[in-house]
Amino acid sequence: MQDPSAATGAVSTGSGDTIPSSATMNGRLSTSGANGAKGTIGIKQETKRSKYRHVAAYHARVRHSSLTREPNVTASFLGFRNLMVIVLVAMNLRLIIENFMKYGVLICIRCHDYRKQDVVLGSILFALVPYHLFISYLIELSASKRAKQVVGQRKKDGSPEAAERDQRTFRLTWWLSAFFHCVNTLLSLGVTSFIVYFYIHHPGIGTLCELQALIVSFKICSYAFTNRDLREAMLNPSMESALPEIYSSCPYPRNITLGNLIYFWLAPTLVYQPVYPRSSHIRWSFVGKRLFEFVCLTVFIWLLSAQYAAPVLRNSIDKIAVMDVASILERVMKLSTISLVIWLAGFFAVFQSLLNALAEILRFGDREFYTDWWNSSSLGGYWRSWNRPVYLFMKRHVFSPLVGRGWSPLAASTVVFLVSAVLHEMLVGIPTHNMIGVAFAGMMFQLPLIAITAPLEKIKDPSGRVIGNSIFWVSFCLVGQPLGALLYFFAWQAKYGSVSKMGA
Amino acid sequence: MQDPSAATGAVSTGSGDTIPSSATMNGRLSTSGANGAKGTIGIKQETKRSKYRHVAAYHARVRHSSLTREPNVTASFLGFRNLMVIVLVAMNLRLIIENFMKYGVLICIRCHDYRKQDVVLGSILFALVPYHLFISYLIELSASKRAKQVVGQRKKDGSPEAAERDQRTFRLTWWLSAFFHCVNTLLSLGVTSFIVYFYIHHPGIGTLCELQALIVSFKICSYAFTNRDLREAMLNPSMESALPEIYSSCPYPRNITLGNLIYFWLAPTLVYQPVYPRSSHIRWSFVGKRLFEFVCLTVFIWLLSAQYAAPVLRNSIDKIAVMDVASILERVMKLSTISLVIWLAGFFAVFQSLLNALAEILRFGDREFYTDWWNSSSLGGYWRSWNRPVYLFMKRHVFSPLVGRGWSPLAASTVVFLVSAVLHEMLVGIPTHNMIGVAFAGMMFQLPLIAITAPLEKIKDPSGRVIGNSIFWVSFCLVGQPLGALLYFFAWQAKYGSVSKMGA
Repeated sequence: MQDPSAATGAVSTGSGDTIPSSATMNGRLSTSGANGAKGTIGIKQETKRSKYRHVAAYHARVRHSSLTREPNVTASFLGFRNLMVIVLVAMNLRLIIENFMKYGVLICIRCHDYRKQDVVLGSILFALVPYHLFISYLIELSASKRAKQVVGQRKKDGSPEAAERDQRTFRLTWWLSAFFHCVNTLLSLGVTSFIVYFYIHHPGIGTLCELQALIVSFKICSYAFTNRDLREAMLNPSMESALPEIYSSCPYPRNITLGNLIYFWLAPTLVYQPVYPRSSHIRWSFVGKRLFEFVCLTVFIWLLSAQYAAPVLRNSIDKIAVMDVASILERVMKLSTISLVIWLAGFFAVFQSLLNALAEILRFGDREFYTDWWNSSSLGGYWRSWNRPVYLFMKRHVFSPLVGRGWSPLAASTVVFLVSAVLHEMLVGIPTHNMIGVAFAGMMFQLPLIAITAPLEKIKDPSGRVIGNSIFWVSFCLVGQPLGALLYFFAWQAKYGSVSKMGA
Repeated sequence: MQDPSAATGAVSTGSGDTIPSSATMNGRLSTSGANGAKGTIGIKQETKRSKYRHVAAYHARVRHSSLTREPNVTASFLGFRNLMVIVLVAMNLRLIIENFMKYGVLICIRCHDYRKQDVVLGSILFALVPYHLFISYLIELSASKRAKQVVGQRKKDGSPEAAERDQRTFRLTWWLSAFFHCVNTLLSLGVTSFIVYFYIHHPGIGTLCELQALIVSFKICSYAFTNRDLREAMLNPSMESALPEIYSSCPYPRNITLGNLIYFWLAPTLVYQPVYPRSSHIRWSFVGKRLFEFVCLTVFIWLLSAQYAAPVLRNSIDKIAVMDVASILERVMKLSTISLVIWLAGFFAVFQSLLNALAEILRFGDREFYTDWWNSSSLGGYWRSWNRPVYLFMKRHVFSPLVGRGWSPLAASTVVFLVSAVLHEMLVGIPTHNMIGVAFAGMMFQLPLIAITAPLEKIKDPSGRVIGNSIFWVSFCLVGQPLGALLYFFAWQAKYGSVSKMGA
């Protein structure tokens, strides 16, 4: 690696105390040519270094610091993104060690805190609720038979008077089926809520039962509404009543079968369609992977809740009781990280792993259970994208019909959020036996937030989108969720005392 | 906003129970045309919706979840970057509140923990050290006079014998100036280190004096080496001894003036050049902004150190004493975030704010005091870019001359890091009165780390760069720095007891 120019001796040219021309010192300076200043030594020395290493001109031109805001300076900060990830991992690893030193292992597999009555009642309820769907099937079956009769009679006697008479008599069927569907849905929701609120103490079992009842009620509504419109479309065929092409393979009333209903019951959607897009075959390896993810994430959530969320919640009680604002803020912030992780894991477990596994088994084609809600630059964008099954239900059976009837989109949205707020309060308040209205208020509070962040979504400048996205994360995942959890937990404690005395 | 299709009555076409063709239901489905399935209603209905809102086919085609790894699915995760920033802010805000609730306000403006002797001795030392540069000027002045004599005599008597005789007598000047420079540099470093180690108790004042002595010594070395080579180049002009073009405006020995030296003394560089690139004028607003930044960051660092770093360090002492590994790990992690923030703030304060302000005042053109070290994908890249003044000094006066003499780059690099390790240990060990060798070992440990991460830098795939960058952040900012700080603090406590008894 010896430098040849360094090994050769100094060749004296005897030109006195003149300063020889420049030489290229390092790569950075290779643009400054080596032309002789005096014209005597005009040979390019691009590849040769000066024999004298200590004279290299490392400061050869004006340069800016890369953090100075100069017109021609652009800096990349990609490294700081990696640093953020590392700091987050390190900070949370530290909290895990701190938690372990403080509490030891809190996880206990064999200890359970639910009563036998809760499990028995919950199981019966969970198994019985889907029968309401069967009742709605019977209602639709008789309505479809009546509709077929009408169509049959119309074919025999095509006079306008006969058609009008048919139409009138069919009104009765319309009202009867609407009435029975309403009763059926309300019974499904009401009975479950009543039993959960008064007889199932454990909030987890209660939530599962309540969730099951809500899903079944959604499905009953969608089944009833869709079949009503299909029936009407059959009775009054016209240009405006054109039906989606995909339905042509199973026209009404051929879709009113038990098999069709059972598929809808199991399918990962709340929107009834006689026909769904289907995938060609079941990839069992895909199902296995998704179920494995689901099991792992469930265990992960359970560990996090028992080891990290529970102590934080317990430690917060005294501070909420004395209304120490700084402490409550500190607790909400400590809880926010854990609740955020649990929320993200739960989202992935249900919407990615479970629903995809279910869809694969049923060859259900449309797997868009969510879109990229994490990039939402407005609260509205978030609500449209995080839970597509509920969003599509609300859009199809609440928002769109209201707008069709001449309501303004704002009024229709308000109705959607009102319905959603009531259902959220039911889902949280009933299993915790505390209808304190926080979930309701939280959902209704989304309306002003949506209004505030809606203009941010339309800003072309990326900074507007970043601000909107930040408002979404802070309002929802960092403040809304942990504050809500804290308040329901506090209400629970106020009503029942310590969690450990839950069974008493 | 009333939908016209909803307002019009149902137009019965009397076509019986056939299924009409599809209609466009929403924007998503606008590609599926509305051509009549039976051919009877072939009119495009792109702009019209079905009268029946509840039948819209929201599940109209096969779609994948955006988190599923499918060939045609690409997801953007930009929102999670915002979330990371928010979580980091929230987590640290929580730690600030926690710290405040635990310790209250620890900052105290009027209480100081240094002795009067420290301040007086430190100030004298700080003021006297630069005189060593003046001594080196005198040495160079006499050497340049001798060189001019030689050149003058050579002009009178151009015979080869006379030239050889001159060359021989000039050897003496070479050795004499080298000797005096060595003595001067060693005295500058040695006296300062001795006084700081034995007479200046306060580590902060000691560090400032030691840093001043190191910088002055660097400048003496660079001044001596550069002028020696310039002199040699003047005495032996040749193609190989070509000098950089930028120097032509001030050829040797015209650069040996007090003014030139004082500019070098003040300039934000450790590499002596007779001429530097200069900016055209001083922008005083720029100077003001940089100095304001510097003051703010200094106060910020002081607040962080007093309120956050000090309690963490103090709490760690017992845990280090009993060698509780989990606790030490927890402490290092807790310290790492604070030390990282202090380090980043300190870097910005010195290398961006202070050096840029100084450069602007001196119209020093080359402001590349650092390049984008935060993106380094190897440790080597980091050391080349974070502290350019020292890097350029080492490259010009240690690495490059050694390679020029035939050393391998690896051997030359090892020497550079050996010198650097000694200087680091001096800079940390002497002011804290504990030469425990951790700083030395930390610097020497860089060599294997550089060797490990060097291949990562060359990988074309971005993941290699991310891994290298992560190794750099973890090894240096998250483990190396806080562990070093902890160990020196522990050594200090072991020697002097509590910090509060420092003056005793």
